[in-house]
Amino acid sequence: MNSFDKLNSAIKNKQSMLCVGLDTDLNKLPSHLPKELDSILTFNKAIIEATYAHCSSYKINFAFYEEYGIKGIEILEKTLELIPDDIFTIADAKRGDIGNTSKSYAKAVFQEMNFDSITVSPYMGKDSVEPFLEFTDKMVFSLCLTSNIGSRDFQYLNVEGRELYKHVFDISRNWADATNLGFVVGATHPSELAYLRSLDEERYFLIPGIGAQGGDIEATIKANFGSKNLNRGLINSSRQILYASSGEDFSEAAKQVAINTNNSINEFVKYL
Amino acid sequence: MNSFDKLNSAIKNKQSMLCVGLDTDLNKLPSHLPKELDSILTFNKAIIEATYAHCSSYKINFAFYEEYGIKGIEILEKTLELIPDDIFTIADAKRGDIGNTSKSYAKAVFQEMNFDSITVSPYMGKDSVEPFLEFTDKMVFSLCLTSNIGSRDFQYLNVEGRELYKHVFDISRNWADATNLGFVVGATHPSELAYLRSLDEERYFLIPGIGAQGGDIEATIKANFGSKNLNRGLINSSRQILYASSGEDFSEAAKQVAINTNNSINEFVKYL
Repeated sequence: MNSFDKLNSAIKNKQSMLCVGLDTDLNKLPSHLPKELDSILTFNKAIIEATYAHCSSYKINFAFYEEYGIKGIEILEKTLELIPDDIFTIADAKRGDIGNTSKSYAKAVFQEMNFDSITVSPYMGKDSVEPFLEFTDKMVFSLCLTSNIGSRDFQYLNVEGRELYKHVFDISRNWADATNLGFVVGATHPSELAYLRSLDEERYFLIPGIGAQGGDIEATIKANFGSKNLNRGLINSSRQILYASSGEDFSEAAKQVAINTNNSINEFVKYL
Repeated sequence: MNSFDKLNSAIKNKQSMLCVGLDTDLNKLPSHLPKELDSILTFNKAIIEATYAHCSSYKINFAFYEEYGIKGIEILEKTLELIPDDIFTIADAKRGDIGNTSKSYAKAVFQEMNFDSITVSPYMGKDSVEPFLEFTDKMVFSLCLTSNIGSRDFQYLNVEGRELYKHVFDISRNWADATNLGFVVGATHPSELAYLRSLDEERYFLIPGIGAQGGDIEATIKANFGSKNLNRGLINSSRQILYASSGEDFSEAAKQVAINTNNSINEFVKYL
């Protein structure tokens, strides 16, 4: 099964568009866990066991593991192994380089690590993204309109009457179909999300920014609707779930937040 | 000594603006070396010993090491250790993410690995680059106008009468001074390089694209001149030096290409 079909199945079977971001920060772990790197894996294992019934995907942001060097990458790889096979996985690495170099990044994430998908940065253009897309059984999420304040700096620049992010969307869409290429669109921009959805009902949008970053679930889900109601979105939550409690009940608390978040999403979603 | 001063000294002491890119590809190693990962380190060691007298910096592109997982990262770290202390080092990683995440990437490269500088992607805006700039004793090279064909896809988009890359340059320049922030500008665009240099004589430009990618040394060096002749540029060459010979004489051949390249550069450069 290719990654696109796996994602469709995971969302339908779990009745969940929730993506849990495993952005685990050693300094934010529950105080009863020893302040050592192995605690990150202990923590991730507990979080995955507590939440996997309620989400369709996990997103692992590489920065939080690379910070600890080789030991961190080992924990990243072990964390990936802990994720059940029927759940879609995202390498949130925001890679991108000239062609022969992107090819090596693609091999790293898709062959060496066997993730289902990766996030990429589009600034260097088509030949920087194509080596990822050549893994046609995998998915690529290109940054389009990001959730952070800095999205205002360049992504809204006026390119011949339209914002840059719309050009990135239009131009990149020609590079691959919906089974292979989706986009990152922040929950902090619901009207822009609705506009992009109106242009393309088939694409998956990876939507960060609810919770700690302030995006609203109802506005996000409604914006992501298309007339076909395909539910082609993954709503990511990281910190709100991971750090729901700093006590020994952290995994139970994370589970409750995951359930509540998914219920909040499902108030507005019907799974076909 | 901060990284900016180290770079100034390295260029002056070595009389070299040459940066050697250690983009080592296992499939391109000399045939007498065994086809195993340890050969990458053997190869890098020989290349560094052969070229360090003729260059002021080494650029390590992370993709070529991440491709081989943890073992690859180990080789990356060991390669970094082999570089003499007086030579400037560049983590060519093209990272960039929301603020708290970029902070982890910055720690990975500047604290865990102790590189002098990093390349970053600007698409996510100021808060995605700032955590790198907060290491004020280090340097950051932001992508501006890249050397690849894909640079035509977005970087030349017409933003209110000027190309996007010029806006990226102008806006980003406000984020930090020349001791902390430089730009990546491809040698394949000499007239654009000359234009950016006319706007800012102090900034370092990291200039890839001579050699395998087709950029011309004379045009590049002349474009990088400013009226102050500060030589604020690093001219990167990777494949042309690394794979100068596929025989047992590979390091001697690499040395000759490094010397010749530096001589070609120095025909047009005067070191103050």
